[in-house]
Amino acid sequence: MSERITVELGDRSYPIVIGSGLLGGGFDLSEYLSDNDCLVVTNDTVGPLYKDALDSMLPEKLVPTVTLKDGEAHKTLESVATILDALVDARASRQTTVIALGGGVVGDMAGFAAASYMRGVGFIQVPTTLLAQVDSSVGGKTGVNHAKGKNLIGAFHQPKLVLIDTDTLTTLPDRELEAGLAEVIKYGAIADIDFLSWLEDNIDALLAKDPAALAYAIKRSCELKAQVVAEDERESGRRAILNFGHTFGHAIEHCLGYGEWLHGEAVAAGMVMAAELSRLPVDQTSRLTSLITRAGLPTAPPAIGGERMIEAMSLDKKARRKSLRFVLLKELGDAFLTSDYDEPTLESICSAADR
Amino acid sequence: MSERITVELGDRSYPIVIGSGLLGGGFDLSEYLSDNDCLVVTNDTVGPLYKDALDSMLPEKLVPTVTLKDGEAHKTLESVATILDALVDARASRQTTVIALGGGVVGDMAGFAAASYMRGVGFIQVPTTLLAQVDSSVGGKTGVNHAKGKNLIGAFHQPKLVLIDTDTLTTLPDRELEAGLAEVIKYGAIADIDFLSWLEDNIDALLAKDPAALAYAIKRSCELKAQVVAEDERESGRRAILNFGHTFGHAIEHCLGYGEWLHGEAVAAGMVMAAELSRLPVDQTSRLTSLITRAGLPTAPPAIGGERMIEAMSLDKKARRKSLRFVLLKELGDAFLTSDYDEPTLESICSAADR
Repeated sequence: MSERITVELGDRSYPIVIGSGLLGGGFDLSEYLSDNDCLVVTNDTVGPLYKDALDSMLPEKLVPTVTLKDGEAHKTLESVATILDALVDARASRQTTVIALGGGVVGDMAGFAAASYMRGVGFIQVPTTLLAQVDSSVGGKTGVNHAKGKNLIGAFHQPKLVLIDTDTLTTLPDRELEAGLAEVIKYGAIADIDFLSWLEDNIDALLAKDPAALAYAIKRSCELKAQVVAEDERESGRRAILNFGHTFGHAIEHCLGYGEWLHGEAVAAGMVMAAELSRLPVDQTSRLTSLITRAGLPTAPPAIGGERMIEAMSLDKKARRKSLRFVLLKELGDAFLTSDYDEPTLESICSAADR
Repeated sequence: MSERITVELGDRSYPIVIGSGLLGGGFDLSEYLSDNDCLVVTNDTVGPLYKDALDSMLPEKLVPTVTLKDGEAHKTLESVATILDALVDARASRQTTVIALGGGVVGDMAGFAAASYMRGVGFIQVPTTLLAQVDSSVGGKTGVNHAKGKNLIGAFHQPKLVLIDTDTLTTLPDRELEAGLAEVIKYGAIADIDFLSWLEDNIDALLAKDPAALAYAIKRSCELKAQVVAEDERESGRRAILNFGHTFGHAIEHCLGYGEWLHGEAVAAGMVMAAELSRLPVDQTSRLTSLITRAGLPTAPPAIGGERMIEAMSLDKKARRKSLRFVLLKELGDAFLTSDYDEPTLESICSAADR
């Protein structure tokens, strides 16, 4: 009932296990706990739904839990300090495993705490949102936002295991499902035109939460991400293509304030803007735009001002020597990183935010 | 006029350069700056003494400086957040290099900020205390204290360069010089009986700040540390021998409050306690005790209570499965890590803190 993908990173390799009914007994966690000690990090939305099922899989001893407030606004160094305090209070050792149960915000913060406690303890991701399942739980990026920029503070810290129970999507709000589909569509756009076609054929099934369709979309997304991460763990080159749409998307999130738009919504609009900056043939841009629209996602930025958006992008992590770099498309299914883009086109695209 | 040791860590290898007159023009930093962007972190004691000399070696452009308050009490996550804020305010990119100018506290915090900013930027150590020169600047351990334990939060982040100008020791207070000698003596005790003999012959010259003696002691200490770090970068085994005396020492610092005793003073007393727990022949223990006494360092714990000391040790980082582990000596010059120690002997040793 489950599929397994391996993220190949030498002695830091780990499996992604995808299936139904894994939480609550369908999977044996014990081989991934280096000691019986663990600490669960979740939030006040996901915890009440799945914490008991997770607990039933853990050793029969006191497992402390940190329950954070739900939402990107709480993805701060202060929240990570709360997790670190809990590890200290539990007298956690280097053998302790931190388990993240929740979406990307929970996973990013629990992972950064696991990276930083005693300079690194074990970490397991149990992502419960589509976005986290196809993106943030895989690849070892952890961290928090700074008041002046997203994910500016963090660490690379690979998990020992990513456990994806697709049943958790039954409780996911539609808006968050759609936001997750933005990243799924991204994988097709940057690296797999056949997958993009499959998505065009199956977008309605995905929106209707068809279990088989979701399982395939998650598996293929994780495979594509695992490939890219294995080639370039620390994003010195190719891994940057995973940021397609994100330079624009982060600027949208930054200017609106984190949490106004969901990350996937900002990325969706950002992908359309990046496709426009790529100056693809019109039929390719409209093919991408149409799929994003069908997924219920925005295809244009909110009214945050074009100049302000460009200003925000220059603080984005991909900024290098103060000049901007973008992930653009040669064609649908083939992305590359470049600082060679057309400035007037960029300004024109961002002026859509002047409304 | 300078010597060079390489810390062999594959693609993370880096040189330690030791000499006189390096700051202010005797060394070319440019090949270690991946971009012209850098940020200097120092404190309000060292900055006024050496910041101008360092600045004169940096590219002619605005180099922001973060000046922290001097002292272990300020080695907190909040201070690291201040450095991160400065990096964000400077719009630092992934190509930025963080330069630590100061003692171990400055280096540990600047290194952790460099590890965490954008998940890792370049880092250069310019240690100005003997302790930092022979210990904390080499090996990639970075981090901060938690209210409940020392160095509980941090990262492994290797520098690109360690630049040791021995001239900086001319302004170092005698008490700090002596504290640094504790770690120098440690290297002899754990790994090099010949070096220990050399120290016995040269301890007076070292205390008199004889430049040639200091340069040799620093070089040999760095060589010994570099060897151990190269064998076990992330302290999964052998590297732990560098913690000889530190389990006791950290407990002393924790119970007294950070900053009451200098780290080296606590380690000095801790080494005597660890030698006693090793149940060495009496002449070996007294040889070590005698050298530590001649260095002006304490050989017994302060009156913090023996039970409290044992309690504090169980939160020490080397605690594993809640049982204690200690670095003990087979004989002088040969250390090993073990959880097999004599409990009544431990209690008897710690009862020296009951006064």
